[in-house]
Amino acid sequence: MIASASRVEHFNAAHRLHNPKWSDEKNAAFFGLCNNKNYHGHNYKLIVKVTGKVDPESGYLIDLKVLKDIIRKEVTDRFDHKNLSVDVPDFDDLNPTAENIAYMAWHRIKKHLNPQFELHITLYETERNFVEYDGR
Amino acid sequence: MIASASRVEHFNAAHRLHNPKWSDEKNAAFFGLCNNKNYHGHNYKLIVKVTGKVDPESGYLIDLKVLKDIIRKEVTDRFDHKNLSVDVPDFDDLNPTAENIAYMAWHRIKKHLNPQFELHITLYETERNFVEYDGR
Amino acid sequence: MIASASRVEHFNAAHRLHNPKWSDEKNAAFFGLCNNKNYHGHNYKLIVKVTGKVDPESGYLIDLKVLKDIIRKEVTDRFDHKNLSVDVPDFDDLNPTAENIAYMAWHRIKKHLNPQFELHITLYETERNFVEYDGR
Amino acid sequence: MIASASRVEHFNAAHRLHNPKWSDEKNAAFFGLCNNKNYHGHNYKLIVKVTGKVDPESGYLIDLKVLKDIIRKEVTDRFDHKNLSVDVPDFDDLNPTAENIAYMAWHRIKKHLNPQFELHITLYETERNFVEYDGR
Amino acid sequence: MIASASRVEHFNAAHRLHNPKWSDEKNAAFFGLCNNKNYHGHNYKLIVKVTGKVDPESGYLIDLKVLKDIIRKEVTDRFDHKNLSVDVPDFDDLNPTAENIAYMAWHRIKKHLNPQFELHITLYETERNFVEYDGR
Amino acid sequence: MIASASRVEHFNAAHRLHNPKWSDEKNAAFFGLCNNKNYHGHNYKLIVKVTGKVDPESGYLIDLKVLKDIIRKEVTDRFDHKNLSVDVPDFDDLNPTAENIAYMAWHRIKKHLNPQFELHITLYETERNFVEYDGR
Repeated sequence: MIASASRVEHFNAAHRLHNPKWSDEKNAAFFGLCNNKNYHGHNYKLIVKVTGKVDPESGYLIDLKVLKDIIRKEVTDRFDHKNLSVDVPDFDDLNPTAENIAYMAWHRIKKHLNPQFELHITLYETERNFVEYDGR
Repeated sequence: MIASASRVEHFNAAHRLHNPKWSDEKNAAFFGLCNNKNYHGHNYKLIVKVTGKVDPESGYLIDLKVLKDIIRKEVTDRFDHKNLSVDVPDFDDLNPTAENIAYMAWHRIKKHLNPQFELHITLYETERNFVEYDGR
Repeated sequence: MIASASRVEHFNAAHRLHNPKWSDEKNAAFFGLCNNKNYHGHNYKLIVKVTGKVDPESGYLIDLKVLKDIIRKEVTDRFDHKNLSVDVPDFDDLNPTAENIAYMAWHRIKKHLNPQFELHITLYETERNFVEYDGR
Repeated sequence: MIASASRVEHFNAAHRLHNPKWSDEKNAAFFGLCNNKNYHGHNYKLIVKVTGKVDPESGYLIDLKVLKDIIRKEVTDRFDHKNLSVDVPDFDDLNPTAENIAYMAWHRIKKHLNPQFELHITLYETERNFVEYDGR
Repeated sequence: MIASASRVEHFNAAHRLHNPKWSDEKNAAFFGLCNNKNYHGHNYKLIVKVTGKVDPESGYLIDLKVLKDIIRKEVTDRFDHKNLSVDVPDFDDLNPTAENIAYMAWHRIKKHLNPQFELHITLYETERNFVEYDGR
Repeated sequence: MIASASRVEHFNAAHRLHNPKWSDEKNAAFFGLCNNKNYHGHNYKLIVKVTGKVDPESGYLIDLKVLKDIIRKEVTDRFDHKNLSVDVPDFDDLNPTAENIAYMAWHRIKKHLNPQFELHITLYETERNFVEYDGR
């Protein structure tokens, strides 16, 4: 029996979208308000979905308390109430777009999972804008 | 890096479900309350998901402001505060079921996207009834 | 012990905002897209709150199944999948704005309640626009 | 034209997570608070997604009123306001984890559908914990 | 400056609605499915609203982290993953209706607050049924 | 006929909670993670409720399109994608707590309304923390 189990977590962070190789004009034109040099912020909603075989003894695919602890240690504790552009080394050389935050969350969580499990990340930046990443 | 980026938009419209090739009795029996000849209506929630390669320079799959503008021009401005059965030529010869509205939204949006991008539409007719279409 | 108990119900309807005493121009200018002569529609969300003494024997203020039946008989069954402007006599001489729909729902429900109970109606026309009415 | 149509339903139930082949100590350590011998409970949210060909005559993939009736007869009427661990024979020899409840719902609903339709179940146990099962 | 500050918390519990002074028949007729002798359960959502003067130095009415700790100690840790009818002494002689749970939460939280603060409790038993209590 | 009409808007901003009259140690101890000197951020949800007489001619308490424009001009355009602690003069001498943001929104909006209307602001800083202010 193959199933998926998902856990929803949240973090609240500041960021600025900016490519240091571009001119200020190009950054402002491309990223618009998101390029504000003094930062803005979001309540991010992160959905972590794990897919694989259900353990017939326990009836669990993965203990969601264990998954919650992995997410908190690897993602929430690092990103919550932080300025992603300043405080978080993951984004020293990477623009903290939702796509790239999802990419970092995927790599941080994947290494703690049974290698036979697939991992899929959904990240809401607002209620109306969200991205997905599954390791491809 | 392959990812998905999604934008949520809304429109509020009236419609009537009806097949002109069927008798009034068959229409009433099959579509029930949705066949009301004076129309009823919904707040539609549309989720537009684009899948493809993330641009490494910007960190964006697609600029969601650009996607928002495409959705508004092609779907929201045409369908919002309209009677789909009367005001919208897309449904002159097509029953405005949720499935068919999703089909029309997919075709209207797809032509504006990079052809290498995949497109997936989710359309909520109510909080408890929704459909999905991805071009197949 | 004084408390409140609330029940949430939904109905989906078409309507047109229009004052027959005004010119077509004034109606179009004032009500904008909501004046579309072919109607548009909404998923309405209705929250019915009753306030009064809790019965110490049952621990209930009011049986919410009973309240649900009152709401369905008086409001949902009359308004759901209808065109409020055409099918519902309540709005023969009353513009079906959210304010007036809430007013009608209040009067329809109030007469079935213990007269010592206060009644408060909240009506969402969209997720971002809603009204309240409490009999004043 | 291939599409998906989904219906959302709810049921409220008690349960206890427990493996009778394990010691009480192992059950308490593994399942934690969910092993409470006096039970606890949840509002379950069930999303039933059917995928297949849309009927060109009606514009429906499946009549969602029909799907609703199948879900209510097979799942909601059996599980709602019940103790899954005591009242529901499906779980006489099966731990009522979310994964196993989704498995049972899938098998109960699948047999009523056109065999060419695919079925996907999503079950929320809380707003932050949910599982998916599609028959694999 | 008078304001309100609110904190939302959740707990998941089993219960049975039952008045031991009534016959089994009367209990079954009055409470319906909620009278199931084997219990059922809910995800309860609790909104705790405190009203009073904002401290001009900090700009806080009350530190919501402090309020969260009070709620967890007094309500969530006692009620979560419990059978309210069996495990929680508050309901030894009190029917665990939503009204009575809100009453107990109010009294448990109120004693920890500045006496000049008003307290208002909202308790959702399901997404469609909720109660409010403010100490009257 | 007295009613209320409400409009929901959103803005996304960075901020830092800090009292310049306190020591760094006191600020860190009192405001915790919210005192991060590099800022963090939120998706704020603002609910603006206006209460007063419904105009019998139009059936509107207030045109919610007009209210939306007032909110956007006075609040959203000033606060959205900004760092409240750096970019917004309202908070030059005022700690940008949710209570104080609600206070500023109230004063900015009130002056545009019919003086006979009452105004009530609800501001969600996260899904679980929110404040209310009504001018007292």
